[in-house]
Amino acid sequence: MDDIQKTRNLKLVIAYNGAAYHGWQRQAAGIDTVQLRVESAAVQVLKHPVKAHGCSRTDSGVHAEGQVCNIRTPRLTVPLAGIRKAMNSRLPRDIVVRSIEEVPENFNASWSALGKTYRYRIHVGSTRPVHLAGLVWYYWRPLDIRPMQEAASLIIGEHDFRSFASSTEGRETTVRTVYRCDVAQACDGSEIHITVQGNGFLYNMVRNIVGTLVAMGRGRWQPGHITEILKSCDRNQAGPTAPPDGLTLMCVHYDPDFLKNV
Amino acid sequence: MDDIQKTRNLKLVIAYNGAAYHGWQRQAAGIDTVQLRVESAAVQVLKHPVKAHGCSRTDSGVHAEGQVCNIRTPRLTVPLAGIRKAMNSRLPRDIVVRSIEEVPENFNASWSALGKTYRYRIHVGSTRPVHLAGLVWYYWRPLDIRPMQEAASLIIGEHDFRSFASSTEGRETTVRTVYRCDVAQACDGSEIHITVQGNGFLYNMVRNIVGTLVAMGRGRWQPGHITEILKSCDRNQAGPTAPPDGLTLMCVHYDPDFLKNV
Repeated sequence: MDDIQKTRNLKLVIAYNGAAYHGWQRQAAGIDTVQLRVESAAVQVLKHPVKAHGCSRTDSGVHAEGQVCNIRTPRLTVPLAGIRKAMNSRLPRDIVVRSIEEVPENFNASWSALGKTYRYRIHVGSTRPVHLAGLVWYYWRPLDIRPMQEAASLIIGEHDFRSFASSTEGRETTVRTVYRCDVAQACDGSEIHITVQGNGFLYNMVRNIVGTLVAMGRGRWQPGHITEILKSCDRNQAGPTAPPDGLTLMCVHYDPDFLKNV
Repeated sequence: MDDIQKTRNLKLVIAYNGAAYHGWQRQAAGIDTVQLRVESAAVQVLKHPVKAHGCSRTDSGVHAEGQVCNIRTPRLTVPLAGIRKAMNSRLPRDIVVRSIEEVPENFNASWSALGKTYRYRIHVGSTRPVHLAGLVWYYWRPLDIRPMQEAASLIIGEHDFRSFASSTEGRETTVRTVYRCDVAQACDGSEIHITVQGNGFLYNMVRNIVGTLVAMGRGRWQPGHITEILKSCDRNQAGPTAPPDGLTLMCVHYDPDFLKNV
């Protein structure tokens, strides 16, 4: 056995409030990102250089309940619960490691993912929700939820989502499958939650879907217009990009049998 | 009629997330406070110098759902709803004017108050609540709610609350009446909410009550020990001061008949 085979691979589920960070992805020195914070905490605990490969490059201001990353370590000298606790005591209060588990050597948080679920929160009350600043999109104009629901149902399925991509740089294909896209009243009617689950997402895809659904809710377009927007493969045909504040990466889906095979 | 008689007096109800501010009260130049922000917005809208007399000097990091202040203006040229809207468009997203109404000339947000209600949120889940950072006290050790409830019931009534005051400077008396003090499980059991209503509060009084109730919940003291703490009139006999994060000024109570008498 050589050294590489002996390396242990750990899957971390991480939650954060992204308001104070320039997204997940590590950037130039001096720019604060969630990955930087997670790696710094891991280095202090594991006492060796750490690279935290994340599943989703969440943007500035976007949140996570279940971001996933994996880190490699040559050996495990303390129990995983101890690593989690020690990392959490070194992380700021808006980032937390929810769980750590050992996964197969060939697990990669990004490439092994089968899909992801995002939730977008729109606050629709008549008073700005000051305690939710940064966590919701406060939309004070009236929104009709029924056309939004009808339009959302047309997004489900395998489509070329080029019209909903702010950039397609580096993408081999813009075809993705959306398994779930629903619009629901929540929090006593003061919020609208849009949940989108798919096998993969293009840049700003959820925020562009939300911006388009809101246009339906305002009566700008009929719900059926979604089909033409998809067909056009033209970003200019869809609605504007919703702000990052309301967006949360809820979870990343993996094959449970694959994960067990440590 | 002289000028003073013609002055209009406005009562503003204000909500804010206090995490980013050095409390309500205006301080030295360069220190950001909620009062400073409210006065700046009012000056821009009313086009004259404004002093916003607040009811409660909430500390750094303490929040409000219903802080009350009053401002005076020589004449009303736009409807109150227009002033509210214009002020809100000039306030940061973590401060909002909930309502504005005209009140009698002799109304003063502080002196006219009959009482106040505060709520304190303790989060007790096993994972740090990253989306509630700054809004709750995250207490990860187990807390037994029943002794906290029993102790809370002994705080109700007229007492000398000197043991619960971090400072008594400038106070004529330390006797206050607490009308309500209850401890309840909330948010599916992940939070404990402590609600305290009284005719007036000493400096840090709610946070010192909370710190003491948590000591009961940890089994440090029997609930009945509250009576001895009150009797001692000694701050050192009570528990530590709970952090500001979990505290919210919910509302200020006034005589509704007095307010109507414009």
